[in-house]
Amino acid sequence: MPQYIAPIKDMQFVLHDWLNLSEHYQKLGLEDFDQELVNEILQQGAKFAEEVIAPLNREGDEQGAKLIDGNVTTPDGFAEAYKEYVANGWNAMLGSADYEGQDLPNTVAVPVHEMLDSANLSWRLTGMLNESAILAITKHANDDLKRTYLAKLISGEWTGTMCLTEPHAGTDLSLLSTKAIPNEDGSFNITGSKIFISSGDHDWTDNIIHLVLARLPDAPPGVKGISLFLTPKFFPLDDGGIGQRNSVTVGSIEKKMGIKASPTCVMNFDGAQGFLVGEANNGLACMFTMMNDARFQVGMQGLGIIEASYQGALTYARERLQSRAPQGVQEQNKKADPIIHQPDVRRMLLTQKAIAEGCRALALLYAQQMDIERFGTDEDKHKAKSVISFLTPIVKGFMTDMGSEMSNLGVQVFGGHGFIREWGMEQLVRDARITQLYEGTNGIQALDLISRKLARDKGTMLEDTFALFNSKIQQMTNADKQTQATELLTEWFAAATELKQQNAVDLAGTAYDFMHYSAYCLLGVIWLSMADTAERSDNASIKSGKANTCAFYLKRLLPRKDGFKTNLFNGADDLMVVSDAEFDYQ
Amino acid sequence: MPQYIAPIKDMQFVLHDWLNLSEHYQKLGLEDFDQELVNEILQQGAKFAEEVIAPLNREGDEQGAKLIDGNVTTPDGFAEAYKEYVANGWNAMLGSADYEGQDLPNTVAVPVHEMLDSANLSWRLTGMLNESAILAITKHANDDLKRTYLAKLISGEWTGTMCLTEPHAGTDLSLLSTKAIPNEDGSFNITGSKIFISSGDHDWTDNIIHLVLARLPDAPPGVKGISLFLTPKFFPLDDGGIGQRNSVTVGSIEKKMGIKASPTCVMNFDGAQGFLVGEANNGLACMFTMMNDARFQVGMQGLGIIEASYQGALTYARERLQSRAPQGVQEQNKKADPIIHQPDVRRMLLTQKAIAEGCRALALLYAQQMDIERFGTDEDKHKAKSVISFLTPIVKGFMTDMGSEMSNLGVQVFGGHGFIREWGMEQLVRDARITQLYEGTNGIQALDLISRKLARDKGTMLEDTFALFNSKIQQMTNADKQTQATELLTEWFAAATELKQQNAVDLAGTAYDFMHYSAYCLLGVIWLSMADTAERSDNASIKSGKANTCAFYLKRLLPRKDGFKTNLFNGADDLMVVSDAEFDYQ
Repeated sequence: MPQYIAPIKDMQFVLHDWLNLSEHYQKLGLEDFDQELVNEILQQGAKFAEEVIAPLNREGDEQGAKLIDGNVTTPDGFAEAYKEYVANGWNAMLGSADYEGQDLPNTVAVPVHEMLDSANLSWRLTGMLNESAILAITKHANDDLKRTYLAKLISGEWTGTMCLTEPHAGTDLSLLSTKAIPNEDGSFNITGSKIFISSGDHDWTDNIIHLVLARLPDAPPGVKGISLFLTPKFFPLDDGGIGQRNSVTVGSIEKKMGIKASPTCVMNFDGAQGFLVGEANNGLACMFTMMNDARFQVGMQGLGIIEASYQGALTYARERLQSRAPQGVQEQNKKADPIIHQPDVRRMLLTQKAIAEGCRALALLYAQQMDIERFGTDEDKHKAKSVISFLTPIVKGFMTDMGSEMSNLGVQVFGGHGFIREWGMEQLVRDARITQLYEGTNGIQALDLISRKLARDKGTMLEDTFALFNSKIQQMTNADKQTQATELLTEWFAAATELKQQNAVDLAGTAYDFMHYSAYCLLGVIWLSMADTAERSDNASIKSGKANTCAFYLKRLLPRKDGFKTNLFNGADDLMVVSDAEFDYQ
Repeated sequence: MPQYIAPIKDMQFVLHDWLNLSEHYQKLGLEDFDQELVNEILQQGAKFAEEVIAPLNREGDEQGAKLIDGNVTTPDGFAEAYKEYVANGWNAMLGSADYEGQDLPNTVAVPVHEMLDSANLSWRLTGMLNESAILAITKHANDDLKRTYLAKLISGEWTGTMCLTEPHAGTDLSLLSTKAIPNEDGSFNITGSKIFISSGDHDWTDNIIHLVLARLPDAPPGVKGISLFLTPKFFPLDDGGIGQRNSVTVGSIEKKMGIKASPTCVMNFDGAQGFLVGEANNGLACMFTMMNDARFQVGMQGLGIIEASYQGALTYARERLQSRAPQGVQEQNKKADPIIHQPDVRRMLLTQKAIAEGCRALALLYAQQMDIERFGTDEDKHKAKSVISFLTPIVKGFMTDMGSEMSNLGVQVFGGHGFIREWGMEQLVRDARITQLYEGTNGIQALDLISRKLARDKGTMLEDTFALFNSKIQQMTNADKQTQATELLTEWFAAATELKQQNAVDLAGTAYDFMHYSAYCLLGVIWLSMADTAERSDNASIKSGKANTCAFYLKRLLPRKDGFKTNLFNGADDLMVVSDAEFDYQ
């Protein structure tokens, strides 16, 4: 695998030129953050990702996480890298200043997260889930719990987990059966088994804080009877140290397709003492605070994989000599031309590039809305939250589907060598595969989008999203591109509006199509808008490169939307009519 | 992984009802083969694949092939299963009766091959490549070589390999540098290193026969200077036994993404004695005899994976209880409904089903042409060969691309459990991935189709292929379906004909699109034709199931063709205009 190099120039173009961060920060009263500071953080983040995390990725996959005598060990160098990460304050980027966090804007943290995702997905996952846990505790826990746990989670001295899934309750949390019995002191005893717990145990920190969904004895059935409990591995002492061990243990770790360095644990809670987070029976809302953040972050993992695979494929295509280019000999003094001159190889590379840069822009536009949700006026906050809600399933579902498609293209550019583990290209495919599954499968994302975010909403989320993209179009100066973007956005809005009328079954039958249709349309608007901005760039390769990549996207990738659109209004009858016997001609 | 069950009912429908095998065999003078005999062979093949081979697949992936002291060992049970396969005559199905083969029609052998591919791709690969080697020896080797080697390869007592690729010569065989120095006795000494040699060594048989591409000292440069040599691991004795060892050794075996039970060897030839196969400097033609057969067989591997993944996903979707179906409660007495009632899950299952059955029909239509090429009149042979040449890259490229897409859908139906190795679903994804790469990457298939088979041909291959599909349409009785199929085939033929005018660069830039466009169109014709045939079936689930699956294909999958068609006439300028610096904004 070629050395990972953070795509700082593209990030800077998106942040400074396209999103105009300086003005954005001024509006939000974040005057401390100027272009220079942002660039400095990007440089430092890049250095850490490139030099510390990326070199551990390949060997981490071979070694894998191990469970030895009930304790998980991670591959060589993982724990040390984490200690450096914590020492340098990276874990605290987004934490509240009230608990020793840095309160950085998301537009600063998200590009660094992309770098970590590219460099080493397994390693990144622990910190990512901790950030989601921090959010839930910050928003829902009482002051006592915050005082005891939050600063240590924010610094990274301890890590947090999300314990949701059970063997028979994955998508459908109403089926979960873990029990929480109240103690006299106000705490609870948690008993049950949770599966698929990422970093449920590891050798990075002295303590691990589990956020566990469970049922109280008098809880109503279904998802309205779920509560969230903070359950530490070790009970903290008053001095901040580590006391007695709680009765939570690792049952086993999974043998998986990828992210092998990340321990995926079966966690057994055997009357473990836990503390209620938020109101009783309101666990689902607390869970969604974690989950929505995690969904965006998993989308970022998709982007990280796409970029890493693109870089690998690009380097290889420039170096690998094989056959002559059909347009004529390119390197007379060599026995063959680099395969980057082959049109079909360029098709694959440009597909990766157009999707990487388009998804990056989408993610940073989303991050800008996260900034506004945190630091904006009440009215702006409300709108930003609405846009975020709408875009979350698209970011998660589309960007991770692209993670798999693009990392597979990366393997394809390598030919047979792509299948060999040593190169690292196939690892990206295996690591990417989980992102389409966890934190809600992409089918669930599609359903969330079309039902909760589109059909069951009064239309505000759709309209707010339309307004945001339209505002980007209004800023454009190239009239042709502006017209194209307007037509595209209008087509999408009309289709989405019409869809709202459909019944639940038809919506479910077309959900996946709508998610992808939306993503390709919105990425089309983004590409036109970026190409418009790039016309004024003083970086020559950005100027022409964005124009050419936009043209490629419009010509080769945007037409995919029509395939998805075809299905939007066909109903689900064709899906439902097939009888059980017809599936396998019993 | 649920137990694999060979899809015999669908195979019988395609063979007997759709392809009318009895009439086909009569025309070819193969009166011995009637419906009963074919069904008996399918039943026996199914029994072997289901009971002997499939159970070895999961554990084979975990154990992998190993290189110990220069010798390869395969996972537990693999060698014993092979001995049973050979003992029962399966290896000899297609071999020439002159050398103790059974001379079975391909329409009988190919369904059995599909079963083996579904059951255990790693295990199947050795036998598959041996069949390709047998073809090359049968067609090109002199009688001496045939007498010594052919019967043992056909029975399976020995196996054969294809030694083509070198580290710097994959797609571009003109770069290969392995040398062949003539000896006085007419043999040659082969020196060089070959990579990616499947089953280059194993513990199944006493001897392994390598077919090696190498250059003679006076050979012209490039691909016109390549010759093919038969190079045994051990020299045979006159009594048929094993004599002295040849100087060919295993350098290492690859650590791969998948087909881990299949040893992928670096083979070192260190003055190993070899024997010329065919004319000097005509190795490429000999190689293509192997390669074209192998390409079809790799397409079959794609189909095998699709069917295996579909079966796994279908079983799981029927059993996994999660959430209620949007159309209403399905199983009142259970806590949740089986996920097969979810429209989005049905979308995934029906996609797998429509592609599995469509590809199976395409493959068996191809197999019928193989029968004609072997047993037909000279004129028919010629036409069949032409159709086979045209369809080979489509079968290889499309069916293996579908292998990856469909096995990924299978994982998706399983949700997070699909990522866990134990279930076997992710193994199918990993095993499928190689099929898009070996025997010519799918990019090379696409180029072969659009340049050699379409543009550089006088048009005969295209016309013969059109004629074959048109003959299937003429047999249809449902006028509506017949009209739809005619329109589709006509659209495709017109587009292909127009494409022929383009220059080499534009062709290369649109090659991948044309391959997929062609496949979706031709599968559309196939589906309409099958649904027409099924109207007369007396099996109720076939009758309605084929109609419903055809409707699904036409509505949900056929529209993909339009996305590919959009790109056909856009040229390659958008690919070529991107400068080197623009790829990564240097």
